[in-house]
Amino acid sequence: MDYENINIGLAGFGNIGSYFYKILEKNKKDIYIKTGKIPNIKYISARNITKKRKIKIPRKKWVKNFIDLSKKDDVDIIVELIGGSDGPAKKLVFSALKNKKHVITANKALMSKHGDELGHLAEKNEVNLEYEASVAGGVPIIRSIKEGLIANKINKIYGILNGTTNYILSSMERKNKSFNEILNKAKKLGFAETNPISDLNGSDSASKLRILSSIAFNKSISKNKILTEGIQNINLTDILYAKSLGYKIKLLSISEVKKNKLMERVHPCLILKNSYIAKIDGVLNAVVVDGSPIGKSVLQGEGAGPGPTSSAIISDLCTVLKGEVNYPFGVSFSERKKISKFDILNHFCSSYLRIEVKDQPGVLSSITKIFAKNKISIKNLIQKPNKKNKKASIIIITHENIEKNFNNLLLHLVKNKFVLKKPTFIRIETV
Amino acid sequence: MDYENINIGLAGFGNIGSYFYKILEKNKKDIYIKTGKIPNIKYISARNITKKRKIKIPRKKWVKNFIDLSKKDDVDIIVELIGGSDGPAKKLVFSALKNKKHVITANKALMSKHGDELGHLAEKNEVNLEYEASVAGGVPIIRSIKEGLIANKINKIYGILNGTTNYILSSMERKNKSFNEILNKAKKLGFAETNPISDLNGSDSASKLRILSSIAFNKSISKNKILTEGIQNINLTDILYAKSLGYKIKLLSISEVKKNKLMERVHPCLILKNSYIAKIDGVLNAVVVDGSPIGKSVLQGEGAGPGPTSSAIISDLCTVLKGEVNYPFGVSFSERKKISKFDILNHFCSSYLRIEVKDQPGVLSSITKIFAKNKISIKNLIQKPNKKNKKASIIIITHENIEKNFNNLLLHLVKNKFVLKKPTFIRIETV
Repeated sequence: MDYENINIGLAGFGNIGSYFYKILEKNKKDIYIKTGKIPNIKYISARNITKKRKIKIPRKKWVKNFIDLSKKDDVDIIVELIGGSDGPAKKLVFSALKNKKHVITANKALMSKHGDELGHLAEKNEVNLEYEASVAGGVPIIRSIKEGLIANKINKIYGILNGTTNYILSSMERKNKSFNEILNKAKKLGFAETNPISDLNGSDSASKLRILSSIAFNKSISKNKILTEGIQNINLTDILYAKSLGYKIKLLSISEVKKNKLMERVHPCLILKNSYIAKIDGVLNAVVVDGSPIGKSVLQGEGAGPGPTSSAIISDLCTVLKGEVNYPFGVSFSERKKISKFDILNHFCSSYLRIEVKDQPGVLSSITKIFAKNKISIKNLIQKPNKKNKKASIIIITHENIEKNFNNLLLHLVKNKFVLKKPTFIRIETV
Repeated sequence: MDYENINIGLAGFGNIGSYFYKILEKNKKDIYIKTGKIPNIKYISARNITKKRKIKIPRKKWVKNFIDLSKKDDVDIIVELIGGSDGPAKKLVFSALKNKKHVITANKALMSKHGDELGHLAEKNEVNLEYEASVAGGVPIIRSIKEGLIANKINKIYGILNGTTNYILSSMERKNKSFNEILNKAKKLGFAETNPISDLNGSDSASKLRILSSIAFNKSISKNKILTEGIQNINLTDILYAKSLGYKIKLLSISEVKKNKLMERVHPCLILKNSYIAKIDGVLNAVVVDGSPIGKSVLQGEGAGPGPTSSAIISDLCTVLKGEVNYPFGVSFSERKKISKFDILNHFCSSYLRIEVKDQPGVLSSITKIFAKNKISIKNLIQKPNKKNKKASIIIITHENIEKNFNNLLLHLVKNKFVLKKPTFIRIETV
């Protein structure tokens, strides 16, 4: 490794990659001042090299086969911006670490699936594996847990980890518009991808949550199936009922240790509208770390997009340039024990239900009987008839109960002759 | 330096010091796992060694003269929790750095006054000078600026840096009680010190702001007189008027670079009640970093108290244990140029005024004439007569203007025959 010049192989040159390139060029001097090293993007690979681009890249920088980046003697650091949990990204990162290259990645899918193995390999080969950009780019959360909050015993970590869904939920409420209207607008504004399924169904958040809980609790990344529900079935009616009852609906990612077992979940929640997290609107991300002795520490910022992501990548880059080789997950691989899974069926909460029923005599008694049978007691009930079509909505806030009973409740409700479709069920979270 | 055991000399064993001691003992194993080193508090000095304490300290740990801590061969790190910008704290820290001991301090007064010199000395002697606990303990803001946000060009950094004053202002509003009532309650609850003057008059915030702007803008610590106004003259009336006009009153610390000049100020502000920072209530601290490319990144948490402070000290300790010797202010001493001061008289904002006047004919015309003469135009005006005592309050929201004109306005208002006392003047800040 040259003393002053450090060479980077950049894989992926789309929206993020080209922005990172530009911002790195612009900040070279600053980075040199702060780290004593000059980062130099020596090679770039991209799916389509011949594509017309706004930035002019010298021909000698282009590398046709991405995997070659990891094999070049004059590359010290690989920045992986290809994406995807397997395929090229996985191949490249494994190869790079094997060849003792430092790796910086923004790839949450890769890290949440193969992070343990990759981290182990990095540790063995004494190189960095940095991934600040993989979770909430504009929020230095990974670094904060590993360093700023290092002394804390974290009990719970939760927050809004997906900007697209948060934009949709908060815009539905603010503009009084349907899910589809807002989704289409979000696509136009670039706040939602053309195919936003992994955002909407919660799996993007779940990947990020796996990474966060792993470093928060010093455990290996859970392979557990995480309770993952998206926002596709939230409709405006629910948002408005929630509002009238003093709540907001947010897609939260929550990880906590209960009785030495890990409970991870991603699902829409009703939360009190005066709570801190209820006030995070638009594309913002926010993470709350609840630890001892620190209490609640909150970080908030833009989650994605070229700016925040590049900012995170460069912070990782500076760590590498300063020669700070840390354990990728804060502690050595051998210290990262597995943690068993908290049985989600024992999760205890109150909940919101919207049940669409035929508006006929005896409905309410029939419905409330099902609640009683499942030992779930009702806190609030609103019945709204829709005279025109002889239907009615029953909105119920329950007292606290366990997930298992709620599951049974839903099974029984669906079978009831008055119930027109699967009820909407949203857990209430105390935050 | 022993490979595994690292010895600490702890100066100051009050509230914070003893909590830090306890929490360090509890977390030793964790720290070893994360850093490969075992921190050991070898010596302690305190004002009163013989005082009865809850924690039992072995007699051999006590050192009578604090300065000796810095001279012992078997001390690697000094943790300074004495406090105060000069006197023993200053003496100890200078001596420690001279003797090539790493220093961790929670002392904002010391750092804001002597930080440049201390940082230079630490850099020369290749030891750490860490001070995360000096600003907003529960918020890893210093580390975040120096590392997580390292790639950003910061334009503005601002926030609530003092928990006591924030508690007082938000409680006055919530409980509809006077400044003095709330202050007394805060003292009882331990949210305000017995002598809270440096909190109330803004000087505590100003010290912290100097430290933050120095690392945010890579400049030496400003020796400028910072515009510093406290909350002593805010009364409940102002809070209620502000509320009725859609604002909240917060004591903000604001640092920004305008035309290559530094403007630092600490003063009460009217801010829109829907803004993020308006929602930070109670003893919380919050810092907003407005940078490019990251946008706004926000950190929020408890500012002071034994828990958050100890958490920050231990994060500093882990940095030292990992052997990461960084520049104390992010860049080398030689790169930290002075920055000239933005003339505060040119600061441009709108403002709130409450003017207590005699309720006589011609008052309003006389008052508004003064505004016109000083070229300050009025946006809103409320006049509230108090029939009983023939007085009236005139509440005015002005359009934007420069500080200089506001100063002149106030001078002229005070001289007016109808005006009963110095008007309350609060700047409106767009956050």
